[in-house]
Amino acid sequence: MTTSSGTAPADADRATAAPPATVRRGAYRRLSVEARRAELITAALGLFAHHVPEDVSLDDVASAAGASRPLVYRYFPGGKQQLYEAALRSAADELEGCFEEPRTGPLSSRLGSVLDRYLTFVDEHDAGFSALLHGGSVAETSRTSAIVDEVRRAAAEQILRHVAADAAADGPAEEPGARLRMMVRTWITAVEAASLIWLDENKQPSAGELRDWLVDHFVALLTATAATDPQAARVMRAALAAEPAHGPVGALVRRVAPVFGEARHLL
Amino acid sequence: MTTSSGTAPADADRATAAPPATVRRGAYRRLSVEARRAELITAALGLFAHHVPEDVSLDDVASAAGASRPLVYRYFPGGKQQLYEAALRSAADELEGCFEEPRTGPLSSRLGSVLDRYLTFVDEHDAGFSALLHGGSVAETSRTSAIVDEVRRAAAEQILRHVAADAAADGPAEEPGARLRMMVRTWITAVEAASLIWLDENKQPSAGELRDWLVDHFVALLTATAATDPQAARVMRAALAAEPAHGPVGALVRRVAPVFGEARHLL
Repeated sequence: MTTSSGTAPADADRATAAPPATVRRGAYRRLSVEARRAELITAALGLFAHHVPEDVSLDDVASAAGASRPLVYRYFPGGKQQLYEAALRSAADELEGCFEEPRTGPLSSRLGSVLDRYLTFVDEHDAGFSALLHGGSVAETSRTSAIVDEVRRAAAEQILRHVAADAAADGPAEEPGARLRMMVRTWITAVEAASLIWLDENKQPSAGELRDWLVDHFVALLTATAATDPQAARVMRAALAAEPAHGPVGALVRRVAPVFGEARHLL
Repeated sequence: MTTSSGTAPADADRATAAPPATVRRGAYRRLSVEARRAELITAALGLFAHHVPEDVSLDDVASAAGASRPLVYRYFPGGKQQLYEAALRSAADELEGCFEEPRTGPLSSRLGSVLDRYLTFVDEHDAGFSALLHGGSVAETSRTSAIVDEVRRAAAEQILRHVAADAAADGPAEEPGARLRMMVRTWITAVEAASLIWLDENKQPSAGELRDWLVDHFVALLTATAATDPQAARVMRAALAAEPAHGPVGALVRRVAPVFGEARHLL
């Protein structure tokens, strides 16, 4: 991490919290400070998305943003690590947005849309996503872990809101119980793990096939959970009733039925 | 980490790779060096299992092993971090042993036995397991991440060996394809995530219930994968044929059947 060497401008410390005093006069200047900061973060994210943190220097960020090294230090006196965390914050906000989905249509299409956006994000931030989540990254701190956990929690809350609304049908929304929560959080981790494997395997199979398999995985996991959890069974019934025969759940049920047909000794 | 302060004995550097020269003479002494080292690692693991690394000092390890601080430094000149990594190595070996299971009986009982041993291990190493896997631990390095990844890979290989053997039936063992590999690795991550949630929630539900749900999860995921992957479908058919009606898969199928019975429009 050559960027944390002593070549930062002497006034770096003073700039830690607030923008430099000279640009703190009017609305125009203030906007320009924010815009400049956003520009630097965008440049940093562009680099951190496609390279491991070790391979990105503060000079690379300055050069990508068309800025000078002292200017970058004025905005990010903490150097590369601070830039990395700001870029991660910005990526986390974008990713959290991917999980927002209107509660209309069958559950499988809603999950499919969320997964399409998620996998596009993973595709567009491939090396950075792998480096961040494979563990042991030089840039990993308790702050970066907290941001990653926050995204996982936000994803779980969004999915839980969908399934709880489905379970309630016309009644008031149910509070998701422990088993349904564990199920959704476990599936979120499975999605993350599958995405990392997908990146490791040069994005094979196609994002569309991976999405379909992850939707099938959700339906299968919900089915397994419904076997012993009454709330999950309500969610499952409501979800199945809203699925069209030509949709992915119809296809899954029709493909799986013959396999179980051979196992009549279990019924 | 007060343990990395400069109070190590002056001869610490010389002891890095080999045991101290004075004890390198005969078989008896050599054994005693190894035994002493093992004793220190056991003491360290006992502490790191139930406390976050921040709360364990080198003095705690010395005191738990009935040894002096200089003696601990003689064996572990790298101090607390080296002790932590040695304890993790030892725990990883133990955990890898949990995944070994004879290839007899229905797949669900084999998975159940593996999960029983795994969840006992998680229960007995609760705080250390959480601290290690929640990310952002002060003791996390690329070496500790490599050990964790090695355990995950070993677990996946063991499970894949079971399912590949089942798919081959009487023929030669099949090489597991990409989809089956992704399925098993994804399930391993789900097991890990569920274990962390289980620890966070004061070990609720019981380990037995969690095991049953994880076995159901495996069966469900295999079913979903079998819908589009011919090899997974072969594994599934072979596995179902060997399951007894009174076993967990029989119970799962009978509980799930009525839910699907209501969704005849999908067939």
